[in-house]
Amino acid sequence: MIKEGDRVLLVSEEGDEFLVKLQKGLKYVTHIGTIMHDEIIGKPYGGSIETSRGIRLFLLQPGIVDDIYNMKRRTQIVYPKDIGFIILMLDVKEGDRVIDAGVGSGAMSYALARAVGVNGKVYAYERRQDFYSLAIKNFKNWGVEERIELKLRDISDGFDERNVDALFLDVPTPWEYLAQAWQALKGGGRLGIVVPTTNQVQEVLKVLYDLPFIRIEVWENLFRPYKPVPDRLRPVDRMVAHTAFMIFATKFC
Amino acid sequence: MIKEGDRVLLVSEEGDEFLVKLQKGLKYVTHIGTIMHDEIIGKPYGGSIETSRGIRLFLLQPGIVDDIYNMKRRTQIVYPKDIGFIILMLDVKEGDRVIDAGVGSGAMSYALARAVGVNGKVYAYERRQDFYSLAIKNFKNWGVEERIELKLRDISDGFDERNVDALFLDVPTPWEYLAQAWQALKGGGRLGIVVPTTNQVQEVLKVLYDLPFIRIEVWENLFRPYKPVPDRLRPVDRMVAHTAFMIFATKFC
Amino acid sequence: MIKEGDRVLLVSEEGDEFLVKLQKGLKYVTHIGTIMHDEIIGKPYGGSIETSRGIRLFLLQPGIVDDIYNMKRRTQIVYPKDIGFIILMLDVKEGDRVIDAGVGSGAMSYALARAVGVNGKVYAYERRQDFYSLAIKNFKNWGVEERIELKLRDISDGFDERNVDALFLDVPTPWEYLAQAWQALKGGGRLGIVVPTTNQVQEVLKVLYDLPFIRIEVWENLFRPYKPVPDRLRPVDRMVAHTAFMIFATKFC
Amino acid sequence: MIKEGDRVLLVSEEGDEFLVKLQKGLKYVTHIGTIMHDEIIGKPYGGSIETSRGIRLFLLQPGIVDDIYNMKRRTQIVYPKDIGFIILMLDVKEGDRVIDAGVGSGAMSYALARAVGVNGKVYAYERRQDFYSLAIKNFKNWGVEERIELKLRDISDGFDERNVDALFLDVPTPWEYLAQAWQALKGGGRLGIVVPTTNQVQEVLKVLYDLPFIRIEVWENLFRPYKPVPDRLRPVDRMVAHTAFMIFATKFC
Repeated sequence: MIKEGDRVLLVSEEGDEFLVKLQKGLKYVTHIGTIMHDEIIGKPYGGSIETSRGIRLFLLQPGIVDDIYNMKRRTQIVYPKDIGFIILMLDVKEGDRVIDAGVGSGAMSYALARAVGVNGKVYAYERRQDFYSLAIKNFKNWGVEERIELKLRDISDGFDERNVDALFLDVPTPWEYLAQAWQALKGGGRLGIVVPTTNQVQEVLKVLYDLPFIRIEVWENLFRPYKPVPDRLRPVDRMVAHTAFMIFATKFC
Repeated sequence: MIKEGDRVLLVSEEGDEFLVKLQKGLKYVTHIGTIMHDEIIGKPYGGSIETSRGIRLFLLQPGIVDDIYNMKRRTQIVYPKDIGFIILMLDVKEGDRVIDAGVGSGAMSYALARAVGVNGKVYAYERRQDFYSLAIKNFKNWGVEERIELKLRDISDGFDERNVDALFLDVPTPWEYLAQAWQALKGGGRLGIVVPTTNQVQEVLKVLYDLPFIRIEVWENLFRPYKPVPDRLRPVDRMVAHTAFMIFATKFC
Repeated sequence: MIKEGDRVLLVSEEGDEFLVKLQKGLKYVTHIGTIMHDEIIGKPYGGSIETSRGIRLFLLQPGIVDDIYNMKRRTQIVYPKDIGFIILMLDVKEGDRVIDAGVGSGAMSYALARAVGVNGKVYAYERRQDFYSLAIKNFKNWGVEERIELKLRDISDGFDERNVDALFLDVPTPWEYLAQAWQALKGGGRLGIVVPTTNQVQEVLKVLYDLPFIRIEVWENLFRPYKPVPDRLRPVDRMVAHTAFMIFATKFC
Repeated sequence: MIKEGDRVLLVSEEGDEFLVKLQKGLKYVTHIGTIMHDEIIGKPYGGSIETSRGIRLFLLQPGIVDDIYNMKRRTQIVYPKDIGFIILMLDVKEGDRVIDAGVGSGAMSYALARAVGVNGKVYAYERRQDFYSLAIKNFKNWGVEERIELKLRDISDGFDERNVDALFLDVPTPWEYLAQAWQALKGGGRLGIVVPTTNQVQEVLKVLYDLPFIRIEVWENLFRPYKPVPDRLRPVDRMVAHTAFMIFATKFC
């Protein structure tokens, strides 16, 4: 049953989506009609309500991808579709201790926090006050604030942690922090880096080869959606052409 | 420290990779020289040894992708690079109860078991005796057998579970089992299906639209590796052209 | 020197593009200022003028891709970037006699007319009066009307020509016309078909395998543009995800 | 009718392909049986013969793509599938005068020679004696030697021609020759460059922006073949991941 305080994803058959945090007495106004929060409270997930204009809205629990698309943000974010790939390549799992450097709005810290589970820990570094405050707010909203230790700090001087299982770097000049990343990782620990341009990939690779890292890989992913029409199945007309280049490496000693 | 019984991934600078389960007294023969298991035991992860021919091998913990590429298999498998995407789209997380139908060699059950964590559960269905036995063996090898309840069973008659958070279907004719999948899912629960051909996508979509499912999506992913050479950065010459079509849908009531 | 009657492509440094047919005394109004046709006449190609608002516009000869993007159209068109591939795969060359069935706005007939040269011939079939009239107008505008024999005709009853070198089919139900296409082609002649959906590809293939065709191939092309910035080289953010599926086959006797 | 001296493409139903130049009395040995040239002479194109082992071989005229895949080569070549795109983007047409610099085995000169037709001309530059000799041989084989003026020459000192319609550059350090290319082109003439790496694209762009060029574009194309099976339509398993980056620009004065 849906209760006050829940965040609920409202989805129409036409594909309109709204993420609402329920509070008794409030109303929510959309371009397809108005909804009273009270009408939603007490309904089951998977059920539906109608807007004031008679449009049916299904009541769903937001997934992590929904959360990220709907979060408050001030930054360019890791493309949600890439997150699954990164978590897999970094082999992040229950109980892991991991670092997220360059937190931004907090999407990647959130994904890492889910992957390390209740016994794991995410050490998150952000040097800008405004992003720091935004990330704090987002973490609370998602209920993952206890697993994430967020630090307002430049990473030039290195990380506080040692022997972390994985380290994710999403900053404009990652090549300046690779030695620090090496120091924080455990033997065999995995490093992941995202950058938008080929020039940045080149800079990162130049430095990576001078440090004790192996299994150096560079990937990009093209995610292609199809129009889900059984009699006229075909890719959509336009797609995201580029999310990011992803660089991975493993520390040796 | 590496100890007897550990599974260790040996990686050369040239990219040769061997996954070995350590047992005192054994030796392991490769095309780049021989290794004594006893030499590895007691070394730290991230360290290295040399083969009889003087080739350096780094000692790493296998990640889930390594496990899957190196497992015993008799089936076509979900491409490991797609697994992260599927887990993300199905929003599988700590404590979830999920179904994996069409277990095959067990790769997807393994990934799901990691994602649901120690408090979650994977109900896995496989109708062929040989795959069933193979999956049991693989699950034990990966140490996830306690989280996976594997059943030797055809799914035509439906699933035993109700209100599962997510259900993954990897069988040749998934359109025959969509009503059963709907019944097993909770309201708002997520369904994921992989098929290799466009004809199968069409068949699945035809049936999906007649059932209470929304958010019907079809995706394919192109994963493109680059040659990680800083002065001559470019995509590799050949890549995997197609892994699978992935179909997602959400149950409403 | 540019003269009256020329079609000139005006290109700004910001990427604005206008295709203008010059006529003395006329003026051309754009969102970046007004231009007098008389100012352009007498200038060299590659030179530039300024609009009334001081924006520089370079004077270029439109290429075939420019012509197609700027033509009057009422139809979905073959994506210009695919045209080069199709001409190559059909091996259309100087002096060839080819058929274009399903002319639409005439873009493909135009491309074929250029490829067959002054000694070649394009037999073009269109059954809708409105497209027929539009194509006539476009052919004249492009100056290729003499090489194209355009017929207002349904192709169910077959084609008038025999022994053509290549035949291109761009109609909604191409599988209905494959026997007719076979009859019109020479031994070893090449057939090309474009369709937007996977279902249509399947229908075409079913029929193709029952006719004396070999070298049956299906292709799709992804054209990915990059932001041409030397210090931040990367693909653009969004791209065309799908133009068409292209099917090719060669007649045997 | 096929006659002595013709180059004939022999294609089996299984996809084996052999390009043979017919000479009376000769025999051709393949892994699927032997063929006597005399059996082919006098047969019609599109017809078939059988090898000594009873395998049917269809008799086809080789297209330009077949010629290129089957030519004698000593160099990395422009991927034939990209050639159509390049010809289109350079807008090469009947009667054009164009330059091909960095001829290699001659594939691109051949394609340009076909596009400019009997009234056009290709000026081809190659500085290595071995490639020069190879290209001469290939041009003769393809019957295009009269339209191509091949020069054994380094292009550092520039090109002999002026006012050419298009110029294609396929050399390892194209950024060194852009000023020379500009000089040879007509106002509004089009420049095309292929390079395999992102670093080379960056170098070219740096120089291009300092010269009077507009419409600077960078493209890469992914050509994806499908298994042409109507009941199991899907992309093939593996594909070419990267052919080349293509850079285009237009000269202004």
